[in-house]
Parts: sequence; C-alpha cells; structure tokens
Amino acid sequence: MVEKPPITFEVLARDGEARAGVLTTRRGIVDTPVFMPVGTAGTVKGMRFEALEEELDARIILCNTYHLWLRPGANVIRKCGGLHRFTGWRRALLTDSGGFQVWSLGALRKITEEGTRFRSHIDGNLQFLSPEISMEVQAALGSDIVMAFDECAAGDAAPDVLRRSMELTSRWAKRSRVRFDSLQSQALETGRTAPSETINGAQALFGIVQGGSYLDLRRESLDRTTEVGFDGYAIGGLSVGEEKTVMWRVVTDITPRLPADKPRYLMGVGTPEDLVEAVSRGIDMFDCVLPTRNGRTGQAFTSRGKINVKNAQWAVDTRPLDETCDCSVCRRHSRAYLRHLCLSGELLASVLLTHHNLAFFLDTMRRVRQSIRSGDFNKFRREFTEGLNEFEQDKALSSSDV
Amino acid sequence: MVEKPPITFEVLARDGEARAGVLTTRRGIVDTPVFMPVGTAGTVKGMRFEALEEELDARIILCNTYHLWLRPGANVIRKCGGLHRFTGWRRALLTDSGGFQVWSLGALRKITEEGTRFRSHIDGNLQFLSPEISMEVQAALGSDIVMAFDECAAGDAAPDVLRRSMELTSRWAKRSRVRFDSLQSQALETGRTAPSETINGAQALFGIVQGGSYLDLRRESLDRTTEVGFDGYAIGGLSVGEEKTVMWRVVTDITPRLPADKPRYLMGVGTPEDLVEAVSRGIDMFDCVLPTRNGRTGQAFTSRGKINVKNAQWAVDTRPLDETCDCSVCRRHSRAYLRHLCLSGELLASVLLTHHNLAFFLDTMRRVRQSIRSGDFNKFRREFTEGLNEFEQDKALSSSDV
Repeated sequence: MVEKPPITFEVLARDGEARAGVLTTRRGIVDTPVFMPVGTAGTVKGMRFEALEEELDARIILCNTYHLWLRPGANVIRKCGGLHRFTGWRRALLTDSGGFQVWSLGALRKITEEGTRFRSHIDGNLQFLSPEISMEVQAALGSDIVMAFDECAAGDAAPDVLRRSMELTSRWAKRSRVRFDSLQSQALETGRTAPSETINGAQALFGIVQGGSYLDLRRESLDRTTEVGFDGYAIGGLSVGEEKTVMWRVVTDITPRLPADKPRYLMGVGTPEDLVEAVSRGIDMFDCVLPTRNGRTGQAFTSRGKINVKNAQWAVDTRPLDETCDCSVCRRHSRAYLRHLCLSGELLASVLLTHHNLAFFLDTMRRVRQSIRSGDFNKFRREFTEGLNEFEQDKALSSSDV
Repeated sequence: MVEKPPITFEVLARDGEARAGVLTTRRGIVDTPVFMPVGTAGTVKGMRFEALEEELDARIILCNTYHLWLRPGANVIRKCGGLHRFTGWRRALLTDSGGFQVWSLGALRKITEEGTRFRSHIDGNLQFLSPEISMEVQAALGSDIVMAFDECAAGDAAPDVLRRSMELTSRWAKRSRVRFDSLQSQALETGRTAPSETINGAQALFGIVQGGSYLDLRRESLDRTTEVGFDGYAIGGLSVGEEKTVMWRVVTDITPRLPADKPRYLMGVGTPEDLVEAVSRGIDMFDCVLPTRNGRTGQAFTSRGKINVKNAQWAVDTRPLDETCDCSVCRRHSRAYLRHLCLSGELLASVLLTHHNLAFFLDTMRRVRQSIRSGDFNKFRREFTEGLNEFEQDKALSSSDV
C-alpha cells in the first residue's frame, strides 16, 4: 500500500488570496504558482528538453492523453517504459484526461453515461474513451499527476444541459477515483520495466470542477468533487470562448472555496495578464498553449505587450524582442532577424519565438512567486499590467505622428 | 591597405594525399578538413547557434548570397551591421556567390557576358546578378570568405558548351577579383557600423574551378583561376547529377594540382563516405545540405549507415539512433520517440534529426583529422566505410530470416 504520498503541497507565503507554495513530486520540487508548458504529443513543440530544463528551469509540463493514446498509442509507450522514458523528459509530468480534447472534436463525438465515442482526428477510426480507460492510459503513461475524466460542456449551453453535464462529470470523477485506486494498488497495468518503478502509489489524482458560468452549479460540482477526494483540484471548462468577465466571476467565487491545503489548477489559462489575475484569486497551477502556439505564428509576448514579429516596423530593428528579457534568444537575436525568419517560413522562427515566449511566461511566474514571498504582489501586479500596455501606447503615438 | 591577411592556412600533417591543417580567420580558428553546415537564408534550418557553437563546435558555416540578397535584401543586412550581427552567428562565415543558385533556377535564367538575368523564386521579379554585384552583396554581408561569381554548366553538357562556360567563369573570376579588391580597399560599401569593422582587407576571396567532366577543361580552368590568384580554391560543378565515377575522376586529377599552400574546397559534397574519400584526395573543406535536409525528411546518418527513422522496425526501439554517438539527441532520445515525432509531423523531429546528423558529420571530420595527425587515416577510412554498411547487412540478414 501507499507509504509515502505521491505529491505533497505546502503553502509557504500568502499575499491577500495569492499564495506561494511548493509542490513536491517524486520527480522534483515545483514552486507554485507554476505555469506548465504544453507538450501535447510528448513534445513541447519546437523546444529541446535541455533548454526547458537547463535554461528555462521548467519543473513540470503537461501532456495530452488523447493525443498520445491515439498516436503512438498506450502500448508503444508502455513497452518503452512509460512516458518519461519514451520522451526523455525527466521532471514532473501532468497528463490531462482526454475529456477536453474529445469534447473539442464537436460533431465527431457522442457522449453516453458509459463514456465518449468519437472519431479519431488522425484516421477517422471510431474510438471509445471512458473514466476507466482514461485512468488505464494515464497509468501506462506513468504521469506524476493524473486528471480525472470529465465532460466539458459548452460555455453557452442551457442551464439544464450544464447541470446534466456537471452531474455526469461528478459520476465520472467517482469512477475515475475507483479505477485509479485499483491501478495504484497493482503494478501490472503499467509500462514501468523495473520493479522499483511501478506506479504503485506513485501517481497523484486531481479532480475537476465543472458547471459552466453558473455559480450554483460550480459550487455543487465543487462539493461533489471534494467529497470524492483528490490530491488537487482543477477548475475546468473556462477559457473556452466565454466572456472574460464570466471567467473571473467563476474563478473569484470558486477558488477560495477549494481546499486550501491542496494545489488549485486553472485549466487552459491564459495570457500573462490572466495568470497574474488568477494568482491574485488564489490559483497555483496553469497550463496554456498561448506561448507555444503563438510562437509558431510569429507572435511574441514581452514585458511591454504582445508584438507581431512580422510587422514591417521591425525590418531593421536591431533590438531584442524584449529589452528587459535575459533569455538566450533576446541575448543573441534581433527583431530584424526574427522577422526575416518568420517571413521566410524558417523552422528557427518557431523554435526561437517559442523559446522566448516560454521564457517570458516562466519568468513572469518566477517574479510572481518572489513578489508574493516579499509581500509586494499587488505592486508587481499593477506594474506588470501597466507595462503590458506600452506597445499599444507606442502604436497610438506613432499613428498620431503620421 | 591590407596589413594582416584575412585568413592564413597551414598544413600541419599529411597522410598520403590527405592533409590536416588549420585555417585562421579573424573570427577564430578552423581545423581542416572541415565540414561547413549550410545556413541558406542565414539559419542552419532548425538549429540554434548555441548548439552549433557550444555542443557541436562548428567553426564555420556557409550562407547563400542568392537567398539573402533576395530576402531580406542586402540593404537590410547592411543596415543591421552585416550578416554576423544580423544573424547572431559569431564565428567564421563563408558565402557562396549566387552563381550556383541562379544556375539551378534552370529555365528562369538567361546568361550573358555581363551576368545572369533571372526571375526570383520568391516573387517572380526580374533580377540581375553579375560578378560585380555578387562582390558588392558579399561585401554588405561581410562574410569572412567570399566566393568568386561563376557559371555552373550542366554536367552532361556538350564539350563546346562546357568550354564556353568555363571561359566565361574565368573572365568572371577576373572581374570578381577586381571588384573585390576595390571594395576591400574602401570601407564605404559595407554594412559595418564601427570604423574598426570595415571590410578593408578583412575578407578572403576564393576562386572556383569549373569544366564539367572534361579533365582538359578542368586543368585549363585551374590554370586560369590560379593565374588570377585567390586565397583558396574550390572545385565547383560536381555532385550536380553526374555519375560518382566522374566526380572522383575529376577530384582525383584536379585536387593535387591545386596550390598546396591554399585551402581546397569541394563544393556541395557530400555523403559521409564522400567526405572521407575526398579527404583522401587532398580536399580540406566541404559543404552539403544532406545532414540538414535529410534530417527534415526523417533520415538519420549513423556510424552503421543511413536509417529511415519512420520505419516500423523502430516503433518500440528504445536505443539511441546511433549507439556510438555521444550527441545530446542520442544521450536522451530513443528511436521510438524520434519515429513518433516524425510520424506526427512534429517540429522537434526536424530539430533533433538535424542536430544528430550535423553531430555525426562534424564528429566524422574530427575523427578524420585525428587519424591524419596520427598517421592512421587509411585504417580509419577502411573501418569507417565498412561500418556504414552494417544496417544494410542487418536488413539482408533479417529478410533472409523471413
């Protein structure tokens, strides 16, 4: 049976609702609040793990069960000794349950009490995912944090649809917990090749609060989820197209009600401003594709705001993307060069912009943690948010010059 | 006027015709024989310069004048302070003249005594490139080694066509030399922003021997080229679709006739076997797109031969690409993972395979140099070439098993 818990969490400092803590996993310590780079198919697109570990010091990444299950498949990863060995990522790893990806397939899926039937986006084959299968796949992946299998309803769905969805999610949470516990107490279902590396008690399980934009549904979902009992709690079903005010209403109401001694994870959020705002409401963990996806389309996040690297205004600009950034891209490359790479469709454009964007997100979180520890979080939050508008102000100024 | 030569070259050891030497540039020492990774548009596709410098210790790369001239344009690079500053590459840089790229446009070009008129492959605009313009563009780029502007005739062209082409190349060599010298003696035409960084005497110029597969034309081209006088000599117009035997006949005949005290550069060559064979004939410098281009299509070069990373046989193979390779890709990632990345069309597939392939090419050259210095080159050459057939033998064995 479980001797040592798979993860422990401790809050070390508070500043208002904001909290700085430490999540201890068997694959290293994760300081919180933390941003998890997204490694969908077992790769944070375009990033070497060496750069993530050595330069950016990312302590945890997220991988997608849905994608890995379809390709290369759980059997391949099991045979290769789990996702860590398969990919070469040595630090903590969180896997989502596949629920959100299947939901985002839209017309291609059909949801029943038992689970979700859908067509693979790769080859169109019919597939079936359930709480039990999700737990089994995540056991084969051997991730450090496993997410319960949930249903994510559309943000603008009718209240009765959202209620049914929330109730289904809570039944699936229980089934996830049961299957997870049974898998943890045996080593047979895993891909670990050495006996010392079974998943026996090595994985943590997080529950997910759903309920759309309705606070009563959200609170009920929270009660049902905490009743099952998890190692951490996520708020799901936000940042899926709803108004920002809706998201903040839910986060502001629900976050302080989540168990204070467990990590709180806001799924799929968000912009740099969003991260800082969510921290101010008590969130500890984040994941988002923005730094990686936007990096691949020529957008850079900087301390002065977002810039489109392809813009003609950077054609002979020899300054780094962000003059206050110390990442290896900003230390070596100019806006003019990065623009040239983007316009030429060069691989290196994606590689460098992704690197810088992740550096900016991870550095922002480092500064968030420092400011909470030193009791300066509100000052940091104000100055950081003001800084993000500077490029916008420049643009306003230069258009009035013309 | 020139005080210190832009480059110096010294042969330190010989083993038969093979020679190990040192090319000293103002941007560092280059041990020869050397393989130059190709950085077409100012980027070695998918490679961070940090990895090229720090891990792979590439001392010199090649960039393409044609591509950079069309995009971002010589003016942009001039305004940004030359190609080194523009790209962030700090070590030695060789630029080709654009002659080969324009030739490879085929029907899009028209060659006259004055130069070559052609349509840009980017926007279809009419462009004109001549020896003088090529020298001017390469001065703006500020490369350490400039190539004379040549015409590369088709390998299977008739003797009279090849003679006219070779004679044109030798007239263009003279014009290249004249314009280059005039540019070197003035600083005005360059993009260098600080007076200490003029190209005044800072660039070296290499001539190119042409003549197709005809040894008499090749020898005449050699005489005419050495008569003009250059800092190094290249053999061009090979590895453009002719039979391998033709290439080796030319290389074997011409290389020992090239000035012994200058670096000898075989343009656009080749496979790992080709590099070792050409070294045995006295070649000092190489460039080739094979490691980078094949890396982007899922092919890996290893000490046991070339492998197609997408093959099903690697699906659960947890071994590195090359078990004798110490590169960061082989230290961390398995064939199974790399296959998954290739099949998923992930950016990282190109990044990692390019890295490994360049590591293999550069490491091969390191071993070539060591073996020449220790007088073991022929032993190395034999064992290396035998090793490259091992995967082929495996395949033969496994098919006979079936």
